[in-house]
Amino acid sequence: MNGAEALVSTLIAGGVDTCFANPGTSEMHFLSALDNPAMKSVLCLFEGVATGAADGYFRMKESPAATLLHLGPGLANGLANLHNARRARSGIVNVVGDHVTTHLQYDAPLTSDLEGIARPLSHWLRTTDGAHTLAHDAAQAVAAARDCQIATLVLPGDASWGDAGEVCASPAANPVRAAAPADRIDHVARMIRKADGPVLLILADRTCRGRGPELAGKVAASTGCRIATQFFTNRIERGAGRVTLERIPYFVEAAVEWLKPFRHIVTVETGEPIAFFAYPGWPSLLKHPEAQVHSLALPGEDGTAALEMLADALGASSTKPVWQERIETPAPSGPLDPVSIAHALAAAMPENCILVDESLTTGRSSMALTAGAMPHDTLQNMGGSIGFGTPVATGAAMASPGRRVFCLEGDGSMMYTLQSLWTQARESLDVTTIVFANRKYKILEAEYANMGFGTPGPRAAEMMEIDRPTLGFVALAKGMGVPGTRVDTAEDFYAALVRSCGEPGPSLIEVTL
Amino acid sequence: MNGAEALVSTLIAGGVDTCFANPGTSEMHFLSALDNPAMKSVLCLFEGVATGAADGYFRMKESPAATLLHLGPGLANGLANLHNARRARSGIVNVVGDHVTTHLQYDAPLTSDLEGIARPLSHWLRTTDGAHTLAHDAAQAVAAARDCQIATLVLPGDASWGDAGEVCASPAANPVRAAAPADRIDHVARMIRKADGPVLLILADRTCRGRGPELAGKVAASTGCRIATQFFTNRIERGAGRVTLERIPYFVEAAVEWLKPFRHIVTVETGEPIAFFAYPGWPSLLKHPEAQVHSLALPGEDGTAALEMLADALGASSTKPVWQERIETPAPSGPLDPVSIAHALAAAMPENCILVDESLTTGRSSMALTAGAMPHDTLQNMGGSIGFGTPVATGAAMASPGRRVFCLEGDGSMMYTLQSLWTQARESLDVTTIVFANRKYKILEAEYANMGFGTPGPRAAEMMEIDRPTLGFVALAKGMGVPGTRVDTAEDFYAALVRSCGEPGPSLIEVTL
Repeated sequence: MNGAEALVSTLIAGGVDTCFANPGTSEMHFLSALDNPAMKSVLCLFEGVATGAADGYFRMKESPAATLLHLGPGLANGLANLHNARRARSGIVNVVGDHVTTHLQYDAPLTSDLEGIARPLSHWLRTTDGAHTLAHDAAQAVAAARDCQIATLVLPGDASWGDAGEVCASPAANPVRAAAPADRIDHVARMIRKADGPVLLILADRTCRGRGPELAGKVAASTGCRIATQFFTNRIERGAGRVTLERIPYFVEAAVEWLKPFRHIVTVETGEPIAFFAYPGWPSLLKHPEAQVHSLALPGEDGTAALEMLADALGASSTKPVWQERIETPAPSGPLDPVSIAHALAAAMPENCILVDESLTTGRSSMALTAGAMPHDTLQNMGGSIGFGTPVATGAAMASPGRRVFCLEGDGSMMYTLQSLWTQARESLDVTTIVFANRKYKILEAEYANMGFGTPGPRAAEMMEIDRPTLGFVALAKGMGVPGTRVDTAEDFYAALVRSCGEPGPSLIEVTL
Repeated sequence: MNGAEALVSTLIAGGVDTCFANPGTSEMHFLSALDNPAMKSVLCLFEGVATGAADGYFRMKESPAATLLHLGPGLANGLANLHNARRARSGIVNVVGDHVTTHLQYDAPLTSDLEGIARPLSHWLRTTDGAHTLAHDAAQAVAAARDCQIATLVLPGDASWGDAGEVCASPAANPVRAAAPADRIDHVARMIRKADGPVLLILADRTCRGRGPELAGKVAASTGCRIATQFFTNRIERGAGRVTLERIPYFVEAAVEWLKPFRHIVTVETGEPIAFFAYPGWPSLLKHPEAQVHSLALPGEDGTAALEMLADALGASSTKPVWQERIETPAPSGPLDPVSIAHALAAAMPENCILVDESLTTGRSSMALTAGAMPHDTLQNMGGSIGFGTPVATGAAMASPGRRVFCLEGDGSMMYTLQSLWTQARESLDVTTIVFANRKYKILEAEYANMGFGTPGPRAAEMMEIDRPTLGFVALAKGMGVPGTRVDTAEDFYAALVRSCGEPGPSLIEVTL
């Protein structure tokens, strides 16, 4: 078989059976090898969609997808969502086509420092030596991606078409996560028992789903400590019948106030709370100056096992956590505001839906109101690079057939990688994209004030307004084969949400604010 | 003044008075400083639009614009068009906001190896030390950009808001281009006189406009040598009353055939013709194996002065070149095909229009038919990264008030950076975007065959087809405030082109093939 076929076989043997692709000339042999019934190829019109979709796919499936990207510039277009994926600890195998090795010396137009472009955002990076090493390299890339890493394999054209011999690819082993050492558990358990003020447990990554919240809930119910997440988390299982985790606020002033009571903070698969940005006169570290931080599990360690040990050490294993009650939210009516928006969502969210949240200003203030909705997963943007939402929703839907995805976007964020809609239509994915159209980069208005400037001058203000011309999201969706509707009352918003869940495939709701 | 104000003052003093911006929180002080009547800020909804617009701006104005980008991921979104700009030798000053210096240690979500991301595509790169060094650093960045370089200045938040003292920015000196040494001119002149077969002169960069084509035309008329450009050139002045330069074909087989007669090739501000991609069994170097290559001027040297000296040395200074005749093309009618499309363009192109060509398959075969149109400029994609057209058209229009821009796109390429349309509407730019909708990545079908595969299998074929769902470009344009129309005959296409020129501001024509 040729190198490209060896590569595709190895990916499939390693459980990588989905490839988000934007191919070019240098990837024609790989494209030919993708003509394999065991591999699902998903065409994306822009590379940022491909990498973001691979992020969303990993978050739901806990198993990596591949991307196919065209040389350095194609990879460059995908970097911002690789940044987000990296911060979310989503493993991805990027296959990046490069020129034929002998062609590189001529510095053809598409030649670039491909490894230089890949390095800052790849944990694992290799340009394969040739067809004969491709299966080995691909197996290593898959292993890295299964271990939550961004793995970038550069594939010169001649490695694709060269003879790889007979390849017997063996499946990759499951990565084993390190356990937290026992003395750390003991230390935290002793501290919690002795603390005379409130203690905060911050959960992240895999402890926010499966048994993690329940175990934390046992500790909370037994000891009175509070349990929360950072402002951004890669995936949280929440809703009725689960243990609700509080959310540390985004804005520095609010976060400092929220954290003020705690003199002890226990972190699980994360570090201490830090500001997203620094502001003149405000700290980067958000905790009370006298607060101590105790790490129960480092990022990448098995925090759920650590919570289990902690619950044991505290004698809380059979304590009942406080289960979130189902809150039946009546369908709202009247004007749209953060509360009526959240009520509409809470009332409409079907069981097991997935909420991808990139709604910046609109969603932030009211997401707590969906805590008693039907059980669902929430995916947030841990890297902060805008354009995360619609691609991640696309990948999450690919990984989760039968589950409705609600993708919450601001109008500003929606415009970064809107090409996702086309892939959603092509693959008939059950994604409802909800665009909150306030016609400005409202987050920047707040940030401008936070910097101490007050009201911006006319030219600066124009740089935060996207109302001229008005963006028509229903037309944009239509142009990509996705039916859309526009609503400006809470009852219409609710009705549109319910309708979207009743129809298979994607749709878009423009919420005019 | 603060650092951001010192930076903006220095940019303005250096003649950089346009900034294509996509700001974020870390750039609020810079945004505040942009509130300066001497600086025109242009909001872009995606960073690839900002960097591509800066490319188009430089090509027309020969003077750099700035971009404002938000941290590593914002820069990453702009990289692909920086690659294209770099290959086109377009100077750009990128101002990239970064976290406050003291905040970096906490590895906040948006932290990345910003210099690592910038380095592969920047000629000049610096993270400023602080407010006090910003004016100096900015002056150096402007000087680099004026010298056709990509200059990236990383601006930590505290450098923006710190005290820069009193800054007296002095204007940057004009870069001086090196002259070609006299012995090189003599060598080429002697070779041309002695050669017994046809000689080819390949012009590039600044020799394709101004006096360059005329001087080459004198040499051609006097000696019988042929004059041509590479397949891609950053800007060519062509049309009636100018000297027409032939175009070396794109596909390797055709290019090899075209170059076969020449045993001597003279290159001016470029190197010898190379294949865009390498293919099994085909060479990377396109010239006849026995052909000799003679460099008259290296890239970046003053090729026009070298042509002047060559014409002198050959006694051709007063020879009349062959001026391109005006060819009155009648408005075409009937079905759309490459010839009727080119005829419609040739008939409709107004004097001094600018043709930005990213139409890949549709435009390639027939652009020679516009040689006798009214005088115009053509801008081509020298870097090969798709998504170049609409941003470059946006920047070219910003730099050239009063000139109509025709932007030719394929339906595939149109979908990369379509957010440009919104900026065109916002700034009322006279851009007519023409989308040739064949509903496939047709170039890839040809490339697949070139690789020796013949017809792709069903799954591979699907990766080259973008017909499911159908992209509706009129709806997409409408969503961004740009009026659009769809045509499927040559007469309607011609009429739509003429109509678009009669109405100020942008419009879009979907040409259904």
